[in-house]
Amino acid sequence: MFPQHVIARKRDGQVLSRDEIAAFVRGATDGSWADYQLSALLMAIYLRGLSPEETAHYTDAMMRSGVVADLASVPGIKVDKHSTGGVGDKVSIPLAPIVVACGVPVPMISGRGLGHSGGTLDKLESIPGFRTDLSLDAYRAQVAKVGCALIGQTRDLAPADKKLYALRDVTATVECIPLICGSILSKKLAEGIDALVLDVKFGRGAFMKTKADARQLAAALVAVGRAGGKQVRALLTAMHEPLGRTVGNALEVTESIACLRGEGPADLWQVTQALGAQMLMLGGVAANVTEAEEKLQAAVASGRATAKFREIIIAQGGDGRVVDEPSRLPQARLQVPLTAAVDGYVSDVDAMGVALAALRLGAGRARAEDNVDPAVGVSGLVKMGERVSAGSPLCVIHANDPTALAEARAMLAKAIVVGNEPGVPPGLVDELIG
Amino acid sequence: MFPQHVIARKRDGQVLSRDEIAAFVRGATDGSWADYQLSALLMAIYLRGLSPEETAHYTDAMMRSGVVADLASVPGIKVDKHSTGGVGDKVSIPLAPIVVACGVPVPMISGRGLGHSGGTLDKLESIPGFRTDLSLDAYRAQVAKVGCALIGQTRDLAPADKKLYALRDVTATVECIPLICGSILSKKLAEGIDALVLDVKFGRGAFMKTKADARQLAAALVAVGRAGGKQVRALLTAMHEPLGRTVGNALEVTESIACLRGEGPADLWQVTQALGAQMLMLGGVAANVTEAEEKLQAAVASGRATAKFREIIIAQGGDGRVVDEPSRLPQARLQVPLTAAVDGYVSDVDAMGVALAALRLGAGRARAEDNVDPAVGVSGLVKMGERVSAGSPLCVIHANDPTALAEARAMLAKAIVVGNEPGVPPGLVDELIG
Repeated sequence: MFPQHVIARKRDGQVLSRDEIAAFVRGATDGSWADYQLSALLMAIYLRGLSPEETAHYTDAMMRSGVVADLASVPGIKVDKHSTGGVGDKVSIPLAPIVVACGVPVPMISGRGLGHSGGTLDKLESIPGFRTDLSLDAYRAQVAKVGCALIGQTRDLAPADKKLYALRDVTATVECIPLICGSILSKKLAEGIDALVLDVKFGRGAFMKTKADARQLAAALVAVGRAGGKQVRALLTAMHEPLGRTVGNALEVTESIACLRGEGPADLWQVTQALGAQMLMLGGVAANVTEAEEKLQAAVASGRATAKFREIIIAQGGDGRVVDEPSRLPQARLQVPLTAAVDGYVSDVDAMGVALAALRLGAGRARAEDNVDPAVGVSGLVKMGERVSAGSPLCVIHANDPTALAEARAMLAKAIVVGNEPGVPPGLVDELIG
Repeated sequence: MFPQHVIARKRDGQVLSRDEIAAFVRGATDGSWADYQLSALLMAIYLRGLSPEETAHYTDAMMRSGVVADLASVPGIKVDKHSTGGVGDKVSIPLAPIVVACGVPVPMISGRGLGHSGGTLDKLESIPGFRTDLSLDAYRAQVAKVGCALIGQTRDLAPADKKLYALRDVTATVECIPLICGSILSKKLAEGIDALVLDVKFGRGAFMKTKADARQLAAALVAVGRAGGKQVRALLTAMHEPLGRTVGNALEVTESIACLRGEGPADLWQVTQALGAQMLMLGGVAANVTEAEEKLQAAVASGRATAKFREIIIAQGGDGRVVDEPSRLPQARLQVPLTAAVDGYVSDVDAMGVALAALRLGAGRARAEDNVDPAVGVSGLVKMGERVSAGSPLCVIHANDPTALAEARAMLAKAIVVGNEPGVPPGLVDELIG
């Protein structure tokens, strides 16, 4: 099967066979297709699309390009959550311990942050000693023992995706729903899970800017995940202003711990609870949303959620004392409030503007090879609609470098708008799909 | 200017600026764009198209990616001919000397054959000693002195096309009119010509299978060539059965010499005369087709055409005696007739079938790195509609290898069909464009 024949068929809008798609993905994995052939087909797919069946074959071939974890020996219905990414989206960190505390195993393999959206791994690694580079054997053993492991992608997990994602990034073929589906789901299906809840974000701080696009992606993800034999549901959630009041790695862990104690910001809890309820239902421990929410609230109120988080941290080599003493997390040298110039209402907080300020402080990566600073970021962020007085803080900037502080301060002063009218953010948890 | 931004704009169907197109072509020439970025944009262009203005910018940038020959010092209007390629298409060989003999300089830089269609260079190189690898200086000097040089592409002529053509070949982006225009015209415009006549072939033995596609390509070539400041006209000609009665390098030179003497096959003369007439009109030595045809016929009848060919051969180091003694050309060891099994009419001669038989004998290249055998091929081919008797020859097969002979024989026996009704080929010279 010549690559150029497969490319020509997709170029002409034809449906590729399972074998043709397998040859493409194998070609990406073993180098038998040249990069310029892979990218030509990626562009043809971008412009011609993939049918649901082709997308399922693509996802399956990507999943099988590497190791597929087998968690059959772990009892229970294993459920994971995936988010398409947003600003201040630390939901995985409180969500996993709470759901595990309710009796549902959560095996979770996450990525690192890139661009404006932070990564769960980077946040967890701000906990002193916390290791995310577990082998798949250690991962399986920990899921069996603790009910949860929060690790990073190993090199042998869906290697075709790694190759193709890097190519897509430099050939303008990223924003393509079938290719996004394949990339997300090949890695998630390789985790050994039985069910998956997706948080598909929409809005100016999300990958998908409109609700219609997010809905289309969510529907495709649910269909392809089900074709892969998994139970899948998706929630559309708004990403207009940052989620919670912190952006930055250690700062978001601190806020996650507050959330586990029932003391976090309302919006963070709302999203965590909505996703958690779906996970408990898919995991077979709650019959409906009301019952699920009661269980989630009980896990928080009883302290079982914080205890489970401590257990996970210790199992992964981290300092479990941070759960009771968050001040053990890295602290930035410079902590400076940004204050309101006038009395008024918070009429806008632009998630993207806050994210770029945090990126400037060193909280994220502009390029994959950049290092992140665990301590820096923004805390105490006001929310849209809140009342502020002249001189009261709009947020606190955490920096380790005065130049970065000054630049981030200017960016934040633009992103947070105080006016005469309270801003009204869109509804947070919008729609359940699947 | 990031390559991925240019790719994204074409992907989204936008019109690229002259600068963006220049960056792409420069990227292909100097390696500043990765091959996978070039191929992604080629596929986006294939599917989204290029406007006439974009195609002109693309062609201009490709032409300027290397040396542009300057023939301003050579007096007269310099006119070249380009054919999109067909089976048995040796027209350049008689055409150039006849047109030069009529007083129009013909600077001609040609390609080698690839696939089913033969190359003028390969044919000329079957003449003992004939060199096609002249420098651009030697080329210019010979055009000034002899009125004609028939050379191969130098490495410094439109190098971007060489790079992009190789990529297109393996990424299913060959059959795209704007890209074809750029490839053909960038090289032709770099020759230093003032005017160009195009032979755009259609039919089963041509690159363009339908007349409609050929007409579209011809119109695009004329428009882009004129945007490049040249006088351009195109003739659509049929490529249904092979042109002339020979296919194979030395065999086609022999037939070309016959044509120069006025003793060649009628169809070869018809196409040669039609293209030559346009060249004489563009070259300013004939006011209309009738006058041009009279001049062409006079050049043949007077022997000036053969004398000019001898002069060109000698100028390029070849054995000029072949013009009077074609038996000095390489001869195949095995020369075996294929005979008709029954009385009847030639109802079909499939150009593609004959081409593949010649390819099997070694007359052409399946891959660019293959060598050609100058001696092998097919001669004495019957034409559609001719009467044949059982045992009379349908063609003579020239081979140097018995296995190739046997396989080619079987292929030819299928390509040449004898039946009760005479086959009627489509009209040969069909339409003038421009």
